[in-house]
Amino acid sequence: MRFTTEQRLDDGVLEREFTLGEIPGILWTPASSPTPAPLVLVGHPGGLRRMYPRVAARARHTAAQGFAAVTIELPGAGDRPRSAAADQARADLRRALEAGEPVDEIVERLVPPLVDQAVPEWQATLDAVLALPEVGGPVGYSGGLIGVGIRLAVVEPRISAAVLFAGSYVPRAMVEEARQVTVPLLVLLQWDDEGNDRQLALDLFDAFGSREKTLHANLGGHTGVPDFEGEDATRFLTRHLR
Amino acid sequence: MRFTTEQRLDDGVLEREFTLGEIPGILWTPASSPTPAPLVLVGHPGGLRRMYPRVAARARHTAAQGFAAVTIELPGAGDRPRSAAADQARADLRRALEAGEPVDEIVERLVPPLVDQAVPEWQATLDAVLALPEVGGPVGYSGGLIGVGIRLAVVEPRISAAVLFAGSYVPRAMVEEARQVTVPLLVLLQWDDEGNDRQLALDLFDAFGSREKTLHANLGGHTGVPDFEGEDATRFLTRHLR
Repeated sequence: MRFTTEQRLDDGVLEREFTLGEIPGILWTPASSPTPAPLVLVGHPGGLRRMYPRVAARARHTAAQGFAAVTIELPGAGDRPRSAAADQARADLRRALEAGEPVDEIVERLVPPLVDQAVPEWQATLDAVLALPEVGGPVGYSGGLIGVGIRLAVVEPRISAAVLFAGSYVPRAMVEEARQVTVPLLVLLQWDDEGNDRQLALDLFDAFGSREKTLHANLGGHTGVPDFEGEDATRFLTRHLR
Repeated sequence: MRFTTEQRLDDGVLEREFTLGEIPGILWTPASSPTPAPLVLVGHPGGLRRMYPRVAARARHTAAQGFAAVTIELPGAGDRPRSAAADQARADLRRALEAGEPVDEIVERLVPPLVDQAVPEWQATLDAVLALPEVGGPVGYSGGLIGVGIRLAVVEPRISAAVLFAGSYVPRAMVEEARQVTVPLLVLLQWDDEGNDRQLALDLFDAFGSREKTLHANLGGHTGVPDFEGEDATRFLTRHLR
């Protein structure tokens, strides 16, 4: 893990860009923390530069509450080497959405390989960040891509709680995988998400094996998550990680 | 409005029982309030003595946050004069639930007359409580019977926000009425509510005409609402009433 930039933000949070092998990422740590800060993995659907304003706002809010927060670029997204198959699937997805056509087959093609590749990278990031003296456990996951969150919650025992945004396309196979998730969950759903399958999101919430799971559904489209949900997510993480 | 008992509770909240005509009720007011406190109408499914522990806990939590809170007995419930038709419908409902039989027809028979009778009583309570110098506007509704909450939100312009528990049986006609609700809503749903129709609750959430509406669904049965939902409800009311 090699830090490439470092800046102290207005709220005292330290923001550092890094590379981990070929993977670019960003780490936010609280202004001051007497003990190692619990860690939140901040997920997103790929394209970290494009997503930066939203991802950084969530991460800084989290860090201001005493957590460390880290994110990495997804495989094949942003400045990372492209995958012809993934690029094709993304283009097909956009076309199908614009034409109002079914996207199930495209999602099955796009998401599982992405999850397979991304999850070990998130785990390597977890190893590297937890080795820093200012960061400790426990660890939570927060955000999209929901497939990455589901898989991490299943395979990574260091994850103690997760906030999942049911606003990305979910392959049917991941609904089955969701049954194996047992950590406390807060699931966010935008009720009028354009092109998102509301019933699939509800089926997914139903499938999670966790004994404590809460669904927060709000009116509005994909990017319309109300600000108060950020505060609710931080409270949820505080309840389970501190 | 005639106060019949008065006690100062551990947390400084003043709890007073009262009668308004023939209707018994309870008012909770904050320990101290420099200005008139905003008011929360605390709804319940009837049987105030039986419901007292849960209703009072919610009301005291609300009052401790600087709100006045009031509840009244439902028509035909608790010590109030019985209605033969309502008693029959309640007995039929219990029998149908135990036998796992459909309850739609019974709900259509039980709930609408109850709502028709209860809502003017809640409005009279609102008049009486708002006349007290220590209580001011704005006003919120919180709890069941959800039909009462829906009707009040439609017909009573003094209601500015509502927390509705979608855990009571809802006649189909009230789903239509829900389209006329425009105040901000927090709707609570217990995902595994015994005998409650989850799809009907989701249809109801979808139907509300409010521009700001949030659904909180939690795992568990009818009485299993997690404690943190009480805090979320108070935060919602604080956001809209203060």
